[in-house]
Amino acid sequence: MTRRPPAVVAVLGAGSWGTTFAKILADAGEPHGTSIRLWARRENIADEINTRHTNSRYLSETVLPSSITCSTDVAAVLEGAEVVVIAVPAQSLRSQLSDWKPLISPDAVVVSLMKGLEVGTDDRMSQVLAQELGLPEGRIAVVSGPNLAMEIARCEPTASVVACPDADVATWIAAACTTTYFRPYTNTDVVGVEIGGIVKNVIALAVGICEGKQMGDNTKASVITRGLTETTRLAVALGGEPETLSGLAGMGDLIATCSSSLSRNHTAGRLLGQGLTLDEVTAHMNQTAEGIKSAQAVADLARQLGVYMPITDSVVAVLQGNLSVHDLGPRLLARELKSEG
Amino acid sequence: MTRRPPAVVAVLGAGSWGTTFAKILADAGEPHGTSIRLWARRENIADEINTRHTNSRYLSETVLPSSITCSTDVAAVLEGAEVVVIAVPAQSLRSQLSDWKPLISPDAVVVSLMKGLEVGTDDRMSQVLAQELGLPEGRIAVVSGPNLAMEIARCEPTASVVACPDADVATWIAAACTTTYFRPYTNTDVVGVEIGGIVKNVIALAVGICEGKQMGDNTKASVITRGLTETTRLAVALGGEPETLSGLAGMGDLIATCSSSLSRNHTAGRLLGQGLTLDEVTAHMNQTAEGIKSAQAVADLARQLGVYMPITDSVVAVLQGNLSVHDLGPRLLARELKSEG
Repeated sequence: MTRRPPAVVAVLGAGSWGTTFAKILADAGEPHGTSIRLWARRENIADEINTRHTNSRYLSETVLPSSITCSTDVAAVLEGAEVVVIAVPAQSLRSQLSDWKPLISPDAVVVSLMKGLEVGTDDRMSQVLAQELGLPEGRIAVVSGPNLAMEIARCEPTASVVACPDADVATWIAAACTTTYFRPYTNTDVVGVEIGGIVKNVIALAVGICEGKQMGDNTKASVITRGLTETTRLAVALGGEPETLSGLAGMGDLIATCSSSLSRNHTAGRLLGQGLTLDEVTAHMNQTAEGIKSAQAVADLARQLGVYMPITDSVVAVLQGNLSVHDLGPRLLARELKSEG
Repeated sequence: MTRRPPAVVAVLGAGSWGTTFAKILADAGEPHGTSIRLWARRENIADEINTRHTNSRYLSETVLPSSITCSTDVAAVLEGAEVVVIAVPAQSLRSQLSDWKPLISPDAVVVSLMKGLEVGTDDRMSQVLAQELGLPEGRIAVVSGPNLAMEIARCEPTASVVACPDADVATWIAAACTTTYFRPYTNTDVVGVEIGGIVKNVIALAVGICEGKQMGDNTKASVITRGLTETTRLAVALGGEPETLSGLAGMGDLIATCSSSLSRNHTAGRLLGQGLTLDEVTAHMNQTAEGIKSAQAVADLARQLGVYMPITDSVVAVLQGNLSVHDLGPRLLARELKSEG
């Protein structure tokens, strides 16, 4: 199937990743005259994007293409959009979808940029979308990879993954967001891609804590490696493919997040490791560190499935005040002599 | 099988990793009165270790346990040693073994700390040991993992892997090198462990070049991820297990090396990326960057086996002067839109 590029794409959420992805779509759609309509919650952000073509709160001086228009009127943004990209905070998604459902075109493909597990239900974002919008799974895609928004906004090259159970839809969405600096691969394993993106935020908290405690690169590499092992166990228990977790949306995203000072979760962990309380960390940060919210949901889901996730459990214990950051590092490495597998 | 700890261990090679591993063995063997005998090529290094208990050329101010003695007389070092640990430059191993063979106890277990592929034969170090010493594979073990020597010398905690086809021997060696700061897991997949350690030096050169060219964390994470994918393909073609490459001796070692300014191969790549010539890089560095030597052997082996290793091929092209560092990054990411697998 060769499908023409979408004429209109809506992007709901004008934070750093939503705005950056709008820029990718605009650059990719430029030869086809694609219109990119961005929805912002705040009037001042919409005004700035429309008049100055910047979103300085999230992307400092990055200049956005003029094919991006922004509005706080979600009905106007969604009108006739063939692709609806959603980038709102994971925990607030479900409550917003009932308002949006009647405004979304009946044939639209919905694309999630969100990386979180819903607290209470333990549902992934694609599951929340399917439940609330009544969409078949072949009309829901997920984009995830080693994609620090600030670097992409500066057009530094990266690869990514577009996943959808319908491979043709994945290819169509991938084509709509391919630029010289953003190279998406396609995959049909939505479960593996989403779990990779969710759990990496929790592992990034653990690695950040180790960094805040001045532990070395050997220790961090061990925690990252064993963190991906427990992520893979969870994904496989949910029906995902281990290869997905060894790829860009698993290992790639985890390494980028754990290497970068641009990552919110990594930064939040570092501040915890330096001795700040959870309240102090939250007050210190401009944006949500999703791992802090999702960690408990990940631990709950793992327990239900009988999956062993010692690093996640340790992070939850730190967040709940039941384990000091001082004891986290030794606990992660202190295991009896045994076979690695 | 419960075997008593070795009474005498010989360590051949007093560079940074050989000396650090001697310290691990000494700390682990302290309750059992184990003697650690280190062989150095240079008299001044042996003198410094025996009198001041330091090896300042490689480990600055680290103080070594007094149970380590050092000598330039290899016959005295090997006399009665039940375990012989070898940490000499990979490309010179074979030529030294004929002298050492008659001096090694008939029942000794030989442990390789070396990470290189022999140029010309494309043999792994355990294969060179087996051929030249006439040992069965169950008497040859390999230690590898996220093990930057300088961090371990400072007793910063890390995990590692001891691999031997004989699981009892792996367990015995692991017990002999377990300390509060060094936690080895065991594995029987020597091929996977060795290939992980060899190819990571080549991938670290690629990541270093990207860093020298000021590319971001997204790009580096993509190169690391796809680098491990090609490493895994080579290991599997040689009979290794994919799980080994997802573990500490594969992913763990690769991440530690690519994160750290302590890694020689990473540093060599960074200097190349900054525009130095290969000769300038070699002159600039105190120690061997093994990846520079092994890269061609890895590419040769992959070609013989029909394994696709685009990052390794690109690094070889840079080292041979057939590809500029400026063109490496785009070449690594510029692939057509396709499925990830």
